[in-house]
Amino acid sequence: MESPVGETRRPGPAARERFLRAARGQPVDRPPVWLMRQAGRYLPEYRRVREGSSFLEMCRDPDTAAEVSLQPYRRFGMDGVVVFSDILLPLAGLGIELDFDPGPRIANPIRSRPDLANLDGSAAGAIAPTCEAIRRIKAELGDAAAVIGFAGAPWTLAAYVTESPLSRELTTLVGLSYREPALVDRLLDRLAEVAAETLCEQIAAGADALQIFDTWADVLSPERFERFAGRALRRVVSLLPADRPPLILFARGSTHLLEALADVGPEVVSVDWRIDFAEAARRVGGRVSLQGNLDPLALTAPRERIEAEVAAMLAKGRAARGHIANLGHGVLPSVPPEGVGAFVQAVQRSGE
Amino acid sequence: MESPVGETRRPGPAARERFLRAARGQPVDRPPVWLMRQAGRYLPEYRRVREGSSFLEMCRDPDTAAEVSLQPYRRFGMDGVVVFSDILLPLAGLGIELDFDPGPRIANPIRSRPDLANLDGSAAGAIAPTCEAIRRIKAELGDAAAVIGFAGAPWTLAAYVTESPLSRELTTLVGLSYREPALVDRLLDRLAEVAAETLCEQIAAGADALQIFDTWADVLSPERFERFAGRALRRVVSLLPADRPPLILFARGSTHLLEALADVGPEVVSVDWRIDFAEAARRVGGRVSLQGNLDPLALTAPRERIEAEVAAMLAKGRAARGHIANLGHGVLPSVPPEGVGAFVQAVQRSGE
Repeated sequence: MESPVGETRRPGPAARERFLRAARGQPVDRPPVWLMRQAGRYLPEYRRVREGSSFLEMCRDPDTAAEVSLQPYRRFGMDGVVVFSDILLPLAGLGIELDFDPGPRIANPIRSRPDLANLDGSAAGAIAPTCEAIRRIKAELGDAAAVIGFAGAPWTLAAYVTESPLSRELTTLVGLSYREPALVDRLLDRLAEVAAETLCEQIAAGADALQIFDTWADVLSPERFERFAGRALRRVVSLLPADRPPLILFARGSTHLLEALADVGPEVVSVDWRIDFAEAARRVGGRVSLQGNLDPLALTAPRERIEAEVAAMLAKGRAARGHIANLGHGVLPSVPPEGVGAFVQAVQRSGE
Repeated sequence: MESPVGETRRPGPAARERFLRAARGQPVDRPPVWLMRQAGRYLPEYRRVREGSSFLEMCRDPDTAAEVSLQPYRRFGMDGVVVFSDILLPLAGLGIELDFDPGPRIANPIRSRPDLANLDGSAAGAIAPTCEAIRRIKAELGDAAAVIGFAGAPWTLAAYVTESPLSRELTTLVGLSYREPALVDRLLDRLAEVAAETLCEQIAAGADALQIFDTWADVLSPERFERFAGRALRRVVSLLPADRPPLILFARGSTHLLEALADVGPEVVSVDWRIDFAEAARRVGGRVSLQGNLDPLALTAPRERIEAEVAAMLAKGRAARGHIANLGHGVLPSVPPEGVGAFVQAVQRSGE
């Protein structure tokens, strides 16, 4: 295994502090960097752990979850370490029968009021291994990197609990939103509590920053986002403590929702590669920092090309209040580790 | 079967003329209406035909293709009848081994220069049944509705010919665009010729309007759209005769590409439900008419709700140079025929 190339060996603020300052729009020596799904199949050391266990078994074992969370950090020294888990994990605490094959499968989807009444219980037990993993990662890292917890947004959780496997169009949830909006409201309210409970547990475990994934919000127009997903996201935010860690809000393909996402009240909005980063900064103004936004498939290019893409991204990112360098979506399994290394190092060198 | 409720029984211009005038931004009594994938599985009469044959067999038999194209018109009297075919059909003339299972499968994908050299031949033979179906539909309809031909955009065809089954991220094509842009350029050039040949054959067969589907352009940023998909689309347009029928350009999820799509030079840009229709009109100004944009899943709502959605869409559509009422994407198989009827009739009644 390669030796670490992390920030602990460089002058300047500890990486955790760099991360938090960028999230809050305070001056930094260079943008902090991490990658969504940085613990994953593109790493041979991850695949070795994965061989022996199922995805859920890995999530539910704090040792394994902490270990695979730290693998990319040991190779590349990112400024943020995201805990290995899944947005659907908390739902197991509420009687949802969850499996992965390889995509999520739910044996008892919710489609009616009686189903909804059965959605009780607490997420805390189901995410206890994730919280324990956060504690172990924190113990190992100290201030050397920010530990990032996360939860699924109510709309995205609702998509999964109403339909399995989930269609690209979210046929069930979107259809229900037109035919039975009151039922969708109740479901979103309940799932907002689940998301908030998940995040509160992770805060208690020591998470330095929190990301909310509204992966499937892109099917909504700005008006309907406000009515459903946005309202539920505000509820999540309102249920968090006032002195919470910075919140990053991610919604894939959500160029059309950028202002609405900033309005929800996060410190950071994570945007994808489809939008010009400088244009995104202009649209959100000084309200939030931005995270993103390299095309995940750019990491399959030669190193010089990746460096040029990163340079362009960082130049445009200067228009934002603060910038956390990342991809526009998760690392793909087909990406070579060298591509991830080139990306991280190009950001790290920008501060020299 | 219900009797027709078509425009031929109403005063005012023939529906074909209404369609062409709206496409060109000329005054009309009301917006013309049709639906993408209006010939499809949501109709019991379609499913009866489908039972006896494969999708490709249906496309390749002019009688069947004409019959299923006319089925929705006989029920609902849309102003446009789109010929039943598939954007990949022309590729069979170039040695691409195509099947549907149920999504498209290509046995010999193109990934290298030698593969590309094998991509020769003409699309004409492969789409001859589609062109013959256009002639039969025209013979039956006269001026009672516009007959709509279509082709796949080069970028979208390239996505399918490079990867089968196609991943949501277009891993192969997007990866190649970063690693071997010159190869992608050559592929797009060749597929631009295929698209243009397809459209020219349909024009010769009598198509009144032409739609280009760039279904997968949404993975590109505006800058990369211009570099790849947009450049190839301009080439298609340049290869069509100067006195061509109106061109409608559709790209799913392409809120971020709206201006770029209008710049390609179509008469109409088809937008989806994610964007506020009035905002879309403002962004393209008087350059193009707009087509769209109801959420396909809104057609699962009760009739009154569909009527309210259509009324809101039509009100916003008045801000456009011209408006062709449609969904934001194709009709879904799960939509009830009554939903499609409510949609079409709400537009038809708006002219009374």
